[in-house]
Amino acid sequence: MPERIGKYTMRFKNPPSILGYASVVGKKEGEGPLGKLFDLCHNDTSLGETSWEKAESRLQNEAVNIALDKAGLQNTDMDCIFAGDLLNQCISSTFGLRGLDIPFLGQFGACSTMAQTLSLASIFVESGAARKAAAVTSSHFCSAERQFRFPLEYGGQRTPTAQWTATAAGSVIVGTEEPKEGKKITVQAVTIGRISDLGIKDMNNMGAAMAPAAAQTLTDYLHDTGTSPDEYDLILTGDLGLVGSELMEELLEKENIQISSRHNDCGLMLYDREAQDVHAGGSGCGCSASVLCSTILQQMSQGQLHNVLFIATGALMSPTSSQQGESIPGIAHLVYLKA
Amino acid sequence: MPERIGKYTMRFKNPPSILGYASVVGKKEGEGPLGKLFDLCHNDTSLGETSWEKAESRLQNEAVNIALDKAGLQNTDMDCIFAGDLLNQCISSTFGLRGLDIPFLGQFGACSTMAQTLSLASIFVESGAARKAAAVTSSHFCSAERQFRFPLEYGGQRTPTAQWTATAAGSVIVGTEEPKEGKKITVQAVTIGRISDLGIKDMNNMGAAMAPAAAQTLTDYLHDTGTSPDEYDLILTGDLGLVGSELMEELLEKENIQISSRHNDCGLMLYDREAQDVHAGGSGCGCSASVLCSTILQQMSQGQLHNVLFIATGALMSPTSSQQGESIPGIAHLVYLKA
Repeated sequence: MPERIGKYTMRFKNPPSILGYASVVGKKEGEGPLGKLFDLCHNDTSLGETSWEKAESRLQNEAVNIALDKAGLQNTDMDCIFAGDLLNQCISSTFGLRGLDIPFLGQFGACSTMAQTLSLASIFVESGAARKAAAVTSSHFCSAERQFRFPLEYGGQRTPTAQWTATAAGSVIVGTEEPKEGKKITVQAVTIGRISDLGIKDMNNMGAAMAPAAAQTLTDYLHDTGTSPDEYDLILTGDLGLVGSELMEELLEKENIQISSRHNDCGLMLYDREAQDVHAGGSGCGCSASVLCSTILQQMSQGQLHNVLFIATGALMSPTSSQQGESIPGIAHLVYLKA
Repeated sequence: MPERIGKYTMRFKNPPSILGYASVVGKKEGEGPLGKLFDLCHNDTSLGETSWEKAESRLQNEAVNIALDKAGLQNTDMDCIFAGDLLNQCISSTFGLRGLDIPFLGQFGACSTMAQTLSLASIFVESGAARKAAAVTSSHFCSAERQFRFPLEYGGQRTPTAQWTATAAGSVIVGTEEPKEGKKITVQAVTIGRISDLGIKDMNNMGAAMAPAAAQTLTDYLHDTGTSPDEYDLILTGDLGLVGSELMEELLEKENIQISSRHNDCGLMLYDREAQDVHAGGSGCGCSASVLCSTILQQMSQGQLHNVLFIATGALMSPTSSQQGESIPGIAHLVYLKA
């Protein structure tokens, strides 16, 4: 059973394990520094589908199927799948997964969705609510641009603080058994974030909108557990990008919490920021999902990383809320992974 | 701890209890047959706000605050809130609840959201992941019409199978204690639904798109638990409306499951269908939420209802998916409530 520690954190008495994971990405992501580490790189951003939305659905479907395959499991072995994405009414998830026939719980956490779905899958497995559960999320540059900003055909200019929505999906299978190969990776603890809104209104500066939430959730976790940043190999945020990462470190320094020596951000890892012209870095649910489900879990499985705090961040706005003059609320959920 | 029974159902060993609940509705809902049973009826559909979206956010905020008040609790007593709605990126939930400072997990289940959030709140409380958790959802006729169909100013005609999106919100507080007054209502079991898609493409016939999912989830639950419909006082779906309710009963009759003598649908209860000109009935996340959080939980609390299966249904589409020629996947989650 999950055990509450402090005000905001739960720790698992019998930490559930990661039985399989997979990442599926588009062409640009495949050409980036992590390109060789993904399970599947598509050269055609449309994935051969007739719409960007259908392409994104397929990313998500493929990520789940590859993760199941790597875990030696089938869809019928799953008691539950937690899935979400950025598109209106989460259609990447619902259409991507409708054929799998797995009990489905749609999630909305914007770009924090990978941490949210992994948290819920872990809580379900550890509590006995599910024997095995899956977590998955995705984003697609082309479907996100036309929904949140402008259709690609418009050729809108991007500001220096803008982030590039990843065409990517990541999926994790959670259970109680040993993994088929590599070191056992367990989910040890979870901190569910609170909504934080410091009044940022610039839709092209999501990193700044999400940084306070990331700082808040990490502070909550460290306070609840009585641990310090140097007890972890890596504090991995996603996706604050360049602007948000610096802001988060600044906010934490005011609380006398130093993380810069062990902090990295998925939005700064997925692309070569200069060469690939992604401005402040990557973003989108698929960014942190594909980074976690490739290099991070691989390094943990191979014994190169042991204690990782994964803090995925989300901007909880819509084009409508921004058009109505609203600020951008941020959220961040934390998952403590141990190999 | 939740205990798995059969393939799709979980039963609670220590059933969590409903500590408080509240419903907040608009003018039309207040004029309907349940009008006197809601906690708050607004006479101005804008709730005095400057946009329909802000009005819907306020419905949700008020429902949570009244439910907390009725439970004798404060926002700081909550370990988690599960919330969702129909608007793009769930902005009714995020903007409505951002001031509450409660750990937030956004849900997307379309009109099944009340059952989904109540299920998750119950699982969290029973497993120890939360000591107290809240569930809430909302919908608003005017924000839904302009997002899913046409702006009100267009004056679009409605087809006979169309349902009327409720301007309403409902919230439930789940914990382990005895309620302050009335009979103790507990959550005994949950069945998480699978996505069902029989190819319905008519956005004005959601009831037909969702009926197969409701039939599937009820069949799963009855099979898993080895129980029959006559062991329950009420099998309450929401929101199939007239067309979907008849279709669901037909589908179940083919499996030799008779529910008509104890079946009712939230979409048929919220309005006077003829006098209030709502065609096939009510719909929207707030419809089943406000019916559950008024007459149903009140009757259970007063000892008039004892065993209720609450099956909220959702249509997992978006205007984009329908414009791209996609069918409408349905889902239904079941919660077994006992007084």
